[in-house]
Amino acid sequence: MSIFPLIAIGSASLNDEGVALDVRYHLIVTKENKELLNTVNLSYKNYENLERLLPESLESNSLEKDFADKLSVNKNEKLIIHQMQADEPVRDIKDSYLKLYLMSLREAEPNSLNLDGLFATLPNNAWTNFGPIDPKELEAFRIKNGHVFVKSVDKFPCMTDYIVPSGVRIADASRVRLGAYLAEGTTVMHEGFVNFNAGTLGTAMIEGRISAGVVIGKNSDLGGGCSTMGTLSGGNNIKISVGEDCLLGANSGLGIPLGDKCTVEAGLYLTGGAKVEVLDDNGEIIEVTKASNLSGKSNLLFIRNSLTGTIQCRPNLKSVVLNETLHDND
Amino acid sequence: MSIFPLIAIGSASLNDEGVALDVRYHLIVTKENKELLNTVNLSYKNYENLERLLPESLESNSLEKDFADKLSVNKNEKLIIHQMQADEPVRDIKDSYLKLYLMSLREAEPNSLNLDGLFATLPNNAWTNFGPIDPKELEAFRIKNGHVFVKSVDKFPCMTDYIVPSGVRIADASRVRLGAYLAEGTTVMHEGFVNFNAGTLGTAMIEGRISAGVVIGKNSDLGGGCSTMGTLSGGNNIKISVGEDCLLGANSGLGIPLGDKCTVEAGLYLTGGAKVEVLDDNGEIIEVTKASNLSGKSNLLFIRNSLTGTIQCRPNLKSVVLNETLHDND
Amino acid sequence: MSIFPLIAIGSASLNDEGVALDVRYHLIVTKENKELLNTVNLSYKNYENLERLLPESLESNSLEKDFADKLSVNKNEKLIIHQMQADEPVRDIKDSYLKLYLMSLREAEPNSLNLDGLFATLPNNAWTNFGPIDPKELEAFRIKNGHVFVKSVDKFPCMTDYIVPSGVRIADASRVRLGAYLAEGTTVMHEGFVNFNAGTLGTAMIEGRISAGVVIGKNSDLGGGCSTMGTLSGGNNIKISVGEDCLLGANSGLGIPLGDKCTVEAGLYLTGGAKVEVLDDNGEIIEVTKASNLSGKSNLLFIRNSLTGTIQCRPNLKSVVLNETLHDND
Repeated sequence: MSIFPLIAIGSASLNDEGVALDVRYHLIVTKENKELLNTVNLSYKNYENLERLLPESLESNSLEKDFADKLSVNKNEKLIIHQMQADEPVRDIKDSYLKLYLMSLREAEPNSLNLDGLFATLPNNAWTNFGPIDPKELEAFRIKNGHVFVKSVDKFPCMTDYIVPSGVRIADASRVRLGAYLAEGTTVMHEGFVNFNAGTLGTAMIEGRISAGVVIGKNSDLGGGCSTMGTLSGGNNIKISVGEDCLLGANSGLGIPLGDKCTVEAGLYLTGGAKVEVLDDNGEIIEVTKASNLSGKSNLLFIRNSLTGTIQCRPNLKSVVLNETLHDND
Repeated sequence: MSIFPLIAIGSASLNDEGVALDVRYHLIVTKENKELLNTVNLSYKNYENLERLLPESLESNSLEKDFADKLSVNKNEKLIIHQMQADEPVRDIKDSYLKLYLMSLREAEPNSLNLDGLFATLPNNAWTNFGPIDPKELEAFRIKNGHVFVKSVDKFPCMTDYIVPSGVRIADASRVRLGAYLAEGTTVMHEGFVNFNAGTLGTAMIEGRISAGVVIGKNSDLGGGCSTMGTLSGGNNIKISVGEDCLLGANSGLGIPLGDKCTVEAGLYLTGGAKVEVLDDNGEIIEVTKASNLSGKSNLLFIRNSLTGTIQCRPNLKSVVLNETLHDND
Repeated sequence: MSIFPLIAIGSASLNDEGVALDVRYHLIVTKENKELLNTVNLSYKNYENLERLLPESLESNSLEKDFADKLSVNKNEKLIIHQMQADEPVRDIKDSYLKLYLMSLREAEPNSLNLDGLFATLPNNAWTNFGPIDPKELEAFRIKNGHVFVKSVDKFPCMTDYIVPSGVRIADASRVRLGAYLAEGTTVMHEGFVNFNAGTLGTAMIEGRISAGVVIGKNSDLGGGCSTMGTLSGGNNIKISVGEDCLLGANSGLGIPLGDKCTVEAGLYLTGGAKVEVLDDNGEIIEVTKASNLSGKSNLLFIRNSLTGTIQCRPNLKSVVLNETLHDND
């Protein structure tokens, strides 16, 4: 069942020239009047169904006045009433923020939305303790307002400045972008990182980096400083994923998709092109093959033999048990 | 000499339901009237000795009124007068914050306190530029107060929001939790991290991660991005430590306790189960053994032979010399 | 053409004893009246040339009064009028901040300025949402002003709290120090880090750590968590650099200077002392040599053979292509 079409109401921060720097949504409703977000108890119920809310030119609609009274829109802000009929390429900042919201609200899983054009619609903002500021206007703002703390200069904001999903811990909020999908029971430690259009599908301990497009299955553990190869930079075009009950050891790296119950030893970077000795239960070598040929298989343990330096793949006998105390995120 | 019994006076931030989100202590005194902390020059001297301050139900005591006048307790705060008779398991948030304070105040070394039950007593807070906020109340707070910068959603706060120990530098404060023990002369660089119940016992350069329970001896250097295995997650139950005058190279990792004057080569992850060739002064192989069998030994250099891929342990001839200029933290 | 002599006008934050904690420059002008910085449109044009602005004791000069009116200097601040005749060792905080500014303003490349004495002139500050505070005065400030968010306790501030260079993205501002040199088109991701006196000379994707003294050529890509050896700590005295069109893979490390079009495989730490097999186009071993002997050479690919564990150097056939969308930092 698609979440489209939907309507969203929020406000955009504007720079001095009136250009939108971000969009903060307060209400997102589907066609069936299912609320995906409602932070200020905005009422839409007197409208019989969503279709009436979706005329072609919403901004001139009477709706705007109705909602403007309920949303406190400041001088440097603009009321946004935005409809999205279907999952089409991203055309403007209203689209891009709405799609980022949908992922962080757990309404759309990573890799399920059309994100074409996303980057180009996002302005590069200085993110400060006063909200987003156009970098060109920062110095003037500083002179007028005194000390400004700049936490980031980026196209993407931190997720937690817009949404804090239930049942998660994020030890360093600057390392999770809006558009990250974090399932209930996810803990992202200080060294963890989650890009937009990426995340966890269940309880997980994340102390490593989840690159754009990468998805981690439930009950998996990404050790401190571990790396998952992304598709945005680095020239890689294989989508990396980690199945359920997997462990990526500290400072390890992953260049292939993993099945379930797999382990990559601490410190081992498994690239897709690495030749790997595959061993059976008795420790006998069955074959030598590229790691990429083992993509998606389950119950594998990858190590580098500490005496021969050979990367080996063995049947995985140990299973991951996440520490339950650590995952009670209430 | 034990620091218990002790009495501590502070204030708790409350959520809208009156539940404590944190405790900020201002005065901590031992039985012998030794002040472990006194940030607002609270007077307790008119009380002859601590025993008089420790009746069973302190909160109804006249003390509360005495101190309430001296501490500025806001509407959303509650005065805390808390005694701790002995080092027993953690029962509530007053206990847990007091024990975290004792470690960051350098009054109790890591692994010296009973921390059973700690996690369960700590609520998961949104840590903001307005202090801790209950995540469930964040959206309402944002609407009321305008822009709120969330720096973390976690059970543990940053140490420096409560205590800045003397003679330390911490380049990224979000990476040192309250409960970290940082000796005078410690520098934690941007890539460094120190968990609670962990830290340094002397001058040290920390550019890697000190996991919970891990202790680093004086004059040691943890290179950028290096990992020390913790006992909280990952299924490891051996307590890792690093002796004096040691160097963990950049991007290395450590799965065994080290003695003094040891070096782990940059990029090498030394797990306890790794088989290691042990060489003598002449480069002759003496034995092949598991790394865990070398636990706690001094003067060892661990490398991966770049031609054979074998992990080797050699006598360590080079000693670490910390750059004195970098360690003048005044 | 030297930028010296120059004159700079700004303000210093003072602690309660009147000691300067930082210097924020608003105007920096060269002898030829070229403006290197002018954030508040301070007029110097009525002075015929810079020489008139450079008497020996500027602070008692009438200039001070002229500029005090134009700069809003608060009670805890002091007007700074500072001249620098030539690039001599750093004597005080006015010198050190001016040199850090010159690098972040892209007026002086890394390793081009005399930075002797820099560390000793920089006080260790608590960097907060209220600006720099003397750590000794932090507790009193907190009691007076309520919640204070400490983001760092360090001698160096974040660059973006002073300067945001054009055309850059910095996903986590706490990881770029004032004194970093970031060329137009540089993106520093969350895991990236740039120390002072270090940086990029052209478009670059930085997801790893650029240590003090290290310079990255244009069109190069530092993968997530990669390490470049610095000269400040670790006992290394060879200046590391990366040429143009290079790729350091994720979690890799570099201990030698690289020429152009070089790649270090993900997960490989290449120290200078590592013995390396050098292979020709046909995969034949030409020689075995220390990595340091390959310093500065171009078109090299460094990998660890996944079957033999040997570090090998091969001709680099693949060239790096940065994702243009990611580098449009407007």
